Amino acid sequence: MRQDEVITLAHGAGGAVMHNMIKSVILKHLNNSNGKVFEVPLDSLEDAGVADGTVFTTDSYTVKPLFFPGGDIGRLAVAGTLNDIAVLGADPLALSSALIIEEGFAINDLEKIMESMKLTCKEAGGVGIITGDTKVVERGAVDNLIITTSAIGTKGEFLDRNISIVKKFRPSFDSTWLVDTNIKSGDKIMVSGTIGDHGCAIMSARGNYGFESNIESDVRPLNKMISSVLEIGGIVNIKDPTRGGLSNLLNEWSEKSHIGILLQEDKVPVREGVKAALGFLGLDAFELSNEGKVCFAVLAEKAEEVLQALRQTKEGKDAMIIGEATDEFDVVVLETAVGGRRIIRESAGDPVPRIC
Amino acid sequence: MRQDEVITLAHGAGGAVMHNMIKSVILKHLNNSNGKVFEVPLDSLEDAGVADGTVFTTDSYTVKPLFFPGGDIGRLAVAGTLNDIAVLGADPLALSSALIIEEGFAINDLEKIMESMKLTCKEAGGVGIITGDTKVVERGAVDNLIITTSAIGTKGEFLDRNISIVKKFRPSFDSTWLVDTNIKSGDKIMVSGTIGDHGCAIMSARGNYGFESNIESDVRPLNKMISSVLEIGGIVNIKDPTRGGLSNLLNEWSEKSHIGILLQEDKVPVREGVKAALGFLGLDAFELSNEGKVCFAVLAEKAEEVLQALRQTKEGKDAMIIGEATDEFDVVVLETAVGGRRIIRESAGDPVPRIC
Repeated sequence: MRQDEVITLAHGAGGAVMHNMIKSVILKHLNNSNGKVFEVPLDSLEDAGVADGTVFTTDSYTVKPLFFPGGDIGRLAVAGTLNDIAVLGADPLALSSALIIEEGFAINDLEKIMESMKLTCKEAGGVGIITGDTKVVERGAVDNLIITTSAIGTKGEFLDRNISIVKKFRPSFDSTWLVDTNIKSGDKIMVSGTIGDHGCAIMSARGNYGFESNIESDVRPLNKMISSVLEIGGIVNIKDPTRGGLSNLLNEWSEKSHIGILLQEDKVPVREGVKAALGFLGLDAFELSNEGKVCFAVLAEKAEEVLQALRQTKEGKDAMIIGEATDEFDVVVLETAVGGRRIIRESAGDPVPRIC
Repeated sequence: MRQDEVITLAHGAGGAVMHNMIKSVILKHLNNSNGKVFEVPLDSLEDAGVADGTVFTTDSYTVKPLFFPGGDIGRLAVAGTLNDIAVLGADPLALSSALIIEEGFAINDLEKIMESMKLTCKEAGGVGIITGDTKVVERGAVDNLIITTSAIGTKGEFLDRNISIVKKFRPSFDSTWLVDTNIKSGDKIMVSGTIGDHGCAIMSARGNYGFESNIESDVRPLNKMISSVLEIGGIVNIKDPTRGGLSNLLNEWSEKSHIGILLQEDKVPVREGVKAALGFLGLDAFELSNEGKVCFAVLAEKAEEVLQALRQTKEGKDAMIIGEATDEFDVVVLETAVGGRRIIRESAGDPVPRIC
């Protein structure tokens, strides 16, 4: 990367440009800088890191607008961060909340957002916010409000049990956590519900994309759903398709696990309202962000059982097996209903900035 | 607080207005919302919370300018957050880093800041950054760059030993952590060095306060210094006088420990350059922020020994005993060299916004 270059929106969009920048600018300096070995380090680029058994994650939320159909920045900040703990196979223990507020922000709106954070914590099973920070900056120094939440967690109740079931079928499995390098050819790929809802809801709420819809964001805490699926066992990895959507998630899995992924287009659940909006905008559901969905990579032997358990949960009732890992190729391939095939690339950037 | 009110700069300035807003707007919703009991909860308003033995803290850094004499936003974000772990008596284990970057930001500057974060981690004894987030927003949505760091830590090597020494002299002491409610009449109040350096350096660097100085910010990690003092023992509490300066810190101690504090003005270390700038600006050194200083409340019996140990460290070489806790009154009182007394109130707001 040339030193006279500047940051562009694509550098934060969750796609290939962002991943290159993170490697060439951020990891170059921060990676393993001090020789310590962590169970899940920064350069694994997982949703959370692990140090001495404590799972730790952080995310800044810059969503615009602050209130949107199905949620608000407070709900997003709590659910998004808790989900990054849960996808490693951990149970959330506590949250932090750092607010940066623009001078002139309405206290009434701040109260609504705080109340939403509280309710989302409750929905997640009573996770507590135990530390925080409040900064106020002059008009123009931030756009309204930014929330950065971090969370800590510990090994989930059913994680070890899940891993022992995986090992029964795959004795070579040697991971303590559910990470992106765990997937092998033959593993089934599952999504917990319809994709694209969050990205579509945000675009619609902005009102400047020329369409309106009644699609609501799917933002919600998923730790309970994930826990009930780990109880069944046979889960190899879990990840949430947030920025960059399903296409980035699957390409990350493909790259990090050195596998290909073959998807069946007619199995991928997309709401009719989302399809209509995407057709109008010329966008692909695979690129849109989600906030209340996860993908599972599951042993083929346990896939049907896991699917049924997932469908018993309210968050996973529309779950589908959408494809499988393969060693026949090393990219993500979509097979259409009539048998055509096309490669799904990691997008360069997100079609919608400030979605989360 | 009236519902048609808006947030003002004073709401983020670390003073009385901020504390009222945090209580009436934020804690109202987030406090104990889910019935769980934490060792150090949100409403204790400590620099860090504690859940199941893990110390956890977060801070957003909005400092302007990003580079200033003695430091930069990266050094500030690492040191400031690590110090909030250390003042509870904990050793830092890992950091997170969430960046919000304005489109157009120079990659060269970003690299300098990342390198500074790495070097500050190293200076703190090799703390690792194990998780992060990168958001890029459109021009005007943030001013250049905001960094939010969070950190986790565990009980410090010498904390239990320190507390057992405290209990030898004060059997009623029943705290597991070094918190603001621990101070009793007779405890000596110590500061680890000169005050006001950071606030003065930032004002000077902005160039619009009408003065220039060669004062450098004192921003630095203090965990090693704190650890070597805990090894001596007899420390009742530690806190860093950041936003709102020494006046807010001492008023918080007074309020939470239900004690008065009597300070000797001639004992409070202030650099000549800072004094000159303050005279010019009509400001008080007690109100200015610090980033590389802490205050200790120490058993009178151990105060001299602790002071000598502190002065052996490079971060604490200018340490002074500046006063003591008393039950003769319940406010913070400054005694001048000629014997006059004045009350030091918690300031309403910080004289300098965006100092950290």
